[in-house]
Amino acid sequence: VLRSDSVRESQTNVALDVLLDLSRPADVPLHRRLEQGLRDAIRQGRIEPGSALPPSRKLAADLGCSRWTVNEAYAQLTAEGYLEARTGSATRVRWSGTGVAVKEPAPTPSASLPRYDLAPGLPDLRAFPRRRWADALREQVTVIAVDELGYPSAAGSPRLRRLLASYLRRARGAVATADDLTVCSSVTDGVRRVCEVMRSAGIEAIACEEPGWTPLRQVARGAGLRVVPIRTDERGLVVDELAGDPAVRAVLITPAHQFPTGVVLAAERRAALLRWARAVDGVILEDDYDAEFRYDRRPVGTVQGMDPARVILFKSLSKMLSPALGIGWLVAPRRWTDALRHPGAGMPATLPPVLDQLAFATLLESGTYERHLRRCRQRYRVRRDALVRTLAGHLPGAPLSGIAAGLHLVVGLPSSTDPAAVVGAALTRSVRVAELGGYHATDQRVGHGLVVGYGNIADASVEEAVRLLAAAAREA
Amino acid sequence: VLRSDSVRESQTNVALDVLLDLSRPADVPLHRRLEQGLRDAIRQGRIEPGSALPPSRKLAADLGCSRWTVNEAYAQLTAEGYLEARTGSATRVRWSGTGVAVKEPAPTPSASLPRYDLAPGLPDLRAFPRRRWADALREQVTVIAVDELGYPSAAGSPRLRRLLASYLRRARGAVATADDLTVCSSVTDGVRRVCEVMRSAGIEAIACEEPGWTPLRQVARGAGLRVVPIRTDERGLVVDELAGDPAVRAVLITPAHQFPTGVVLAAERRAALLRWARAVDGVILEDDYDAEFRYDRRPVGTVQGMDPARVILFKSLSKMLSPALGIGWLVAPRRWTDALRHPGAGMPATLPPVLDQLAFATLLESGTYERHLRRCRQRYRVRRDALVRTLAGHLPGAPLSGIAAGLHLVVGLPSSTDPAAVVGAALTRSVRVAELGGYHATDQRVGHGLVVGYGNIADASVEEAVRLLAAAAREA
Repeated sequence: VLRSDSVRESQTNVALDVLLDLSRPADVPLHRRLEQGLRDAIRQGRIEPGSALPPSRKLAADLGCSRWTVNEAYAQLTAEGYLEARTGSATRVRWSGTGVAVKEPAPTPSASLPRYDLAPGLPDLRAFPRRRWADALREQVTVIAVDELGYPSAAGSPRLRRLLASYLRRARGAVATADDLTVCSSVTDGVRRVCEVMRSAGIEAIACEEPGWTPLRQVARGAGLRVVPIRTDERGLVVDELAGDPAVRAVLITPAHQFPTGVVLAAERRAALLRWARAVDGVILEDDYDAEFRYDRRPVGTVQGMDPARVILFKSLSKMLSPALGIGWLVAPRRWTDALRHPGAGMPATLPPVLDQLAFATLLESGTYERHLRRCRQRYRVRRDALVRTLAGHLPGAPLSGIAAGLHLVVGLPSSTDPAAVVGAALTRSVRVAELGGYHATDQRVGHGLVVGYGNIADASVEEAVRLLAAAAREA
Repeated sequence: VLRSDSVRESQTNVALDVLLDLSRPADVPLHRRLEQGLRDAIRQGRIEPGSALPPSRKLAADLGCSRWTVNEAYAQLTAEGYLEARTGSATRVRWSGTGVAVKEPAPTPSASLPRYDLAPGLPDLRAFPRRRWADALREQVTVIAVDELGYPSAAGSPRLRRLLASYLRRARGAVATADDLTVCSSVTDGVRRVCEVMRSAGIEAIACEEPGWTPLRQVARGAGLRVVPIRTDERGLVVDELAGDPAVRAVLITPAHQFPTGVVLAAERRAALLRWARAVDGVILEDDYDAEFRYDRRPVGTVQGMDPARVILFKSLSKMLSPALGIGWLVAPRRWTDALRHPGAGMPATLPPVLDQLAFATLLESGTYERHLRRCRQRYRVRRDALVRTLAGHLPGAPLSGIAAGLHLVVGLPSSTDPAAVVGAALTRSVRVAELGGYHATDQRVGHGLVVGYGNIADASVEEAVRLLAAAAREA
């Protein structure tokens, strides 16, 4: 170790090993290896603050290198503040390190995942159209205008917005033009933006379906809104109960396939919901997350299409292609769009990269996206049928609901069975399912059952997963 | 128009045009065209609520189609809540529209951009390595594990974090492993996360460089922190003045190339800054935005490397490749990482899509990223030299500063000249530059000048842009 003001021969020799750090690749120039060795030694406290370093002439002679090499290393560390150089005096250590480690630790093995993951939330990731996505990206990287590589437009790519609006009009019965549409990163992101704008517009409370998707309730609370749970029955949200709390002027719904019960909002409830919104000058937030996957009929059009001045429509590619893409959008009345696109000071933009937006636009334009959805719908219908059949075989008498659409269904359990115990027993058999009760904001439980997702399970695994789940249900 | 309870022959005929909507593509099946025409007519208020629709047998005969076609259209609109069907009674319109337009308007021409944009902030977008980025994306789309197409890890791709940590150790003198590193979407995003965690940790005030990058001050304020401007001089932040406010326990700095003055933080100031942080148990936020582009010497290592327990390092690809990628990262002490990766309830994840993360990891691993930075550094140095030479020719005597690094420099103006007038006069000549004063939080101006960015201007335009700028300066 080098000591203040006395650089003895033996100490310099000890330091040489440190300084040259033979573990560094030999293709790194000597002055950089010297600099790095010295920097690490100071950081790790192996050279004390105040210590004088050997004069460059001496160190160069000891190391068998040029004085330039030593001076270069000293100069770099002086500029960085580790060393202090004064004319006519030795170069000294200015900074005292704290003994930090700088090596990458060996990676720790990650916890093992359940073999059969039937928790709801994922589409079939094996069906992701890798080649078409790659081709679309490659094409867009080649043709993108130079200016579009700059800071992105807060609204999202105009081309994507135009194509998406056209798709939504055609396929989802929505009323939308590019100007009404804002690209965001997810439904969560979109709902967060809307909740913040609502909060500044003086709306204090939002009704949420009970049960419902927990993260969106948290988003609303995070934005400062009071969340009022409204129960759902076999026709969907019990719209009449919205009037029970006069502060409620917003409601978040999943009309096409209620999450998690799977109920489709009945036609008269849709109309009643819109009447309520008009009466209270309210806002309906419509989460259209899996609506394209309807199996007993064509997908029902959005509520947004019935009153675009009162309904904000949310959607992402998470259930359509992959959550890894981080692409979502919302359609809002024109008076909201400015505020939704420019979140308050201190909020970063949450937009997918423009190249990804353009790649998705390419899939939309060529019809690839809609063909993909049709293939997926077919695939999911077959898998749902297999799941329903297998559940009926292994759990005879258990009521199945929410099967008309989407990527999950609900298995009812007898009131004597504790769903949490079934979920636990299934997990010990390496099967993951969710408990319906886990999506409740209150204790007022609508149903007593399991939420079983089938989006991402392999067809060949359905039989075995259900057999294990049934064994767990019998055990619990 | 159809009227309640009386569907007369002539009225049905009028309606037929509406219902068939000949503008719709003929490859859309008749029942969908009928459904869409009817839906639009209801939305637009052309059919009143309560109106009875013609019986399906009659409408089918009038249209020359099957009853199935009509029934299918009625059933869809009934499910969506537009119509109401009661056994033994006519199908009636349930919903009243509000006369909304559903067509895409012609795009409005966008405002013309200045011909020479020398506002700071952009790298050379023409230098974006399109082919390499496309190749990396294509490779990653092909090899990505199926599981990675699911919901992304909040920390960012482990592979990217490992490679980035290694790069930061090697090239930026940082102390970092994959576990210390969190991927985010931008420096703004990273600073926002840190400010929120600091706020919950009881830190109430943050010092910011004066002048400094306005959006980051807004981020800090948005997180509920009080922003305390601390002036900069020709050696960078005046560190001694941090002690003037005892509530200040955090400071945001750009030590490698202060934004916007371009000053490099002096070595003794770096050490003094770290001593301050230790004394007040404080946090240093180091924005390393353009540090790799140093022209007079090798880039100086990060302050983070000197005390990784007290310094949080921020960086994004915005100045290195393109802001369109939305890829950034931060390196923070281990005790912060959990909170930084899991923003509070209601905050959406702000991570770049995993495929983009993996594409960037591929560029890092192959050395392409560092070669790109070297080529850019060379390119920018040449352009800076041309800019400095041209400015000296056209604005003789104007002091130039902040030229040692980065993608912008500062042109001093005589105190008799109003910088805002020069900016305005330049804009009328289609040259955009920024005013140094625009980056101040207070009236206590450090300098009097223009901030001139040269990252994204074509080499061939430098001469003409400077000539126009000089004419504007003389006019003002």
